[in-house]
Amino acid sequence: MESIKIGLLGFGTVGSGVYSILEDNKDKIESHIQKKLEIKKILVRDIGKQRNVDVPKALFTTDAADVINDPEIGIIVELMGGIETAGGYIKAAIANKKHIVTANKALIATQGDEIYKLACENGVELRYEASVGGGIPIINTLTQSLSANNVDEVCGIINGTTNFILTQMDEQGMEFEEALKLAQDRGFAEADPTSDIEGEDVAFKLAILIEVAFGIKLSPYDIPREGITKISKRDIEFARELGYKIKLVAAARRKGNSLEYHVQPSFLPLANPLASVNNEFNAVLVRGNAVGELLLYGKGAGSTPTGSAVLGDILEISKIMGTDYKAGAPLRNENKGFQLEGEGVSAYYVHMSAKDKPGVLGRITSAFGRYEVSLRSVIQRSRAEDTVPLVFITHETERARLDSALKEIELSNDVSKIESVLRVEKK
Amino acid sequence: MESIKIGLLGFGTVGSGVYSILEDNKDKIESHIQKKLEIKKILVRDIGKQRNVDVPKALFTTDAADVINDPEIGIIVELMGGIETAGGYIKAAIANKKHIVTANKALIATQGDEIYKLACENGVELRYEASVGGGIPIINTLTQSLSANNVDEVCGIINGTTNFILTQMDEQGMEFEEALKLAQDRGFAEADPTSDIEGEDVAFKLAILIEVAFGIKLSPYDIPREGITKISKRDIEFARELGYKIKLVAAARRKGNSLEYHVQPSFLPLANPLASVNNEFNAVLVRGNAVGELLLYGKGAGSTPTGSAVLGDILEISKIMGTDYKAGAPLRNENKGFQLEGEGVSAYYVHMSAKDKPGVLGRITSAFGRYEVSLRSVIQRSRAEDTVPLVFITHETERARLDSALKEIELSNDVSKIESVLRVEKK
Repeated sequence: MESIKIGLLGFGTVGSGVYSILEDNKDKIESHIQKKLEIKKILVRDIGKQRNVDVPKALFTTDAADVINDPEIGIIVELMGGIETAGGYIKAAIANKKHIVTANKALIATQGDEIYKLACENGVELRYEASVGGGIPIINTLTQSLSANNVDEVCGIINGTTNFILTQMDEQGMEFEEALKLAQDRGFAEADPTSDIEGEDVAFKLAILIEVAFGIKLSPYDIPREGITKISKRDIEFARELGYKIKLVAAARRKGNSLEYHVQPSFLPLANPLASVNNEFNAVLVRGNAVGELLLYGKGAGSTPTGSAVLGDILEISKIMGTDYKAGAPLRNENKGFQLEGEGVSAYYVHMSAKDKPGVLGRITSAFGRYEVSLRSVIQRSRAEDTVPLVFITHETERARLDSALKEIELSNDVSKIESVLRVEKK
Repeated sequence: MESIKIGLLGFGTVGSGVYSILEDNKDKIESHIQKKLEIKKILVRDIGKQRNVDVPKALFTTDAADVINDPEIGIIVELMGGIETAGGYIKAAIANKKHIVTANKALIATQGDEIYKLACENGVELRYEASVGGGIPIINTLTQSLSANNVDEVCGIINGTTNFILTQMDEQGMEFEEALKLAQDRGFAEADPTSDIEGEDVAFKLAILIEVAFGIKLSPYDIPREGITKISKRDIEFARELGYKIKLVAAARRKGNSLEYHVQPSFLPLANPLASVNNEFNAVLVRGNAVGELLLYGKGAGSTPTGSAVLGDILEISKIMGTDYKAGAPLRNENKGFQLEGEGVSAYYVHMSAKDKPGVLGRITSAFGRYEVSLRSVIQRSRAEDTVPLVFITHETERARLDSALKEIELSNDVSKIESVLRVEKK
């Protein structure tokens, strides 16, 4: 039986998942592709490091060239993360005619086009299912099963760390800092959680989804985004009272010839299927003009779920190796006619601390009115303090209009602080 | 641009969906595969029939040979349904070196192996994503994205007709016959609904899923199955009272080296994600040993959702046409070591009409005890009639044991009728 040799760049959580799946499911894998798969070299920083999988020391190297330049290795699997070094290794590997599998969302979101072009020129495959949604096959679904659809919407919860934190805040009544600490203790958040909690990780993933679903190349840094650090226990309580869950939502929606997109913590009505996606689970909803609504739900992170997606890619490449077929990467830069609209219009939840004195509510609602922000509902709570929480749900409005109204309101003497402004999804 | 010619066999709901998607999404499709797709011939029974898509009459023929033997046609898409005639056409088309796409679950479940073998011998592709779950990409997911997993469970709601009926019974308080009538009026059930409501359609689909997920060839007629015709409004009310929904569930589960499988109306706890799948929607849950739990949810039937799946297959074949790559069908008959266990053990819901006289409950529970069927809960209702409804939820037991107990109970003078016996899923 032919044997395909693989080189791994990086051996953290996902790398060890890939290794252990290959060991545990060897029979299934070989029977499926009718070839043997063998990990020949693994690039690591520290060969002596204690690891939770049992790997022959001889496989490890600290020199990337040992992996990238090995003539026997046919597929390079990049699981290091980061942009510059990983990108350099991948480009060098492509020049050596190696096929590439990567889980690197930052790299694909920022340099995916360039790398794909290089892959085409060198006649090799580039696959990155694991870069979005962990074990959820969203890239394959968009590029193969739904390839005859014009996509109208992609909307999802695609970051397990923030979803774990929001779930804990909701279910355990924790404040953000406490839930973040728990996430770190449980291994769901990194020591430096910035990229996750500020929404950067989600923006990388959304940029990839937008390119795959709509054929539009968009810098992840041009996606309007907001993290979850400002969300308080009280916001979550108000959401519950109003019949919503707060989730960090990534969405891109076609409206006629425009595309709206954002990464923002949002109020989701309980009937929305994404509202019940909890903890480290992820889900992506796709609306195609032929298939209608399709939802994929599963583990968005972790060693073997993400490893499963990496191996799915490896196996597909293994099957076509030795033939003259090129599967090609997902369509890229295809629909050139789109207007890019940013976050578009939405209803919003606004939570502010107001002074407890007569006429305040009237003056605030008048200020909204001056900017043509109309209100759907208002909650006012009395408290035994100088300030009272005021909560508004607006009708659909442009964010800029809302922000102008809030600026005026914040400058007045009536409000001590705008606590939070969150998107409200319709259904 | 190269043009690929397609022949359709059958032009009902799905056929016209395929046709209209090809028209509406022509630009997207051509840009994706960099080839043109053209429907060249369509086999129909009646050329003059009024149709809801606008098709040039010249495309229609009543002679299958015009489609199957056309040397220009590269892909035959079979959407007739039925086994004998459709199977004959497909085999003839394969002999003519045509690639095959079909939505025909009855045919694939019964003759899939034979047809696949023929396709391999003739060097053509055979794809059937649309045969299970309509627009839901469950076959692609199992065969590609999850190909490195050993699957432990496949469990789903994969018949829109019965799910629509059960949802209406639950939400509108209808009896079965009334809900069936509504389903027929709405086009969700056929004039002869037997195959759907008796679970045959689901058994075909489950046989396909079992082969794709576990590599086991099983006759659909060897799957223990039960339809939904005996379910009453009262069963649904009892389910609600106990915190369950009744759904027609198809499941196959690996237990060690055994496989258990069944098609049965089941009590699903509300926390089970399948419990909230309503009306014509379908969902399939897969548990893989690497990916964990993965759920796919979408429209399980209908013109363009199913057409979307058919076109996904057509596009994948179009991409590999002209290369020496063979994608091959899903793995078949691979894990030969499995014990086939049928439905295995389960908890059950038993609803019976008992005589309203002293000692009845004691004698019935003793009868259960004699067959070692232990009970988790009992509901007894008083009614102003001669008989009272008695409901039992058992602990896990073999079905044969339960049936023996029920036989004894039914023969006694205490019970006038065993109304229904339904599976109870754990979570």
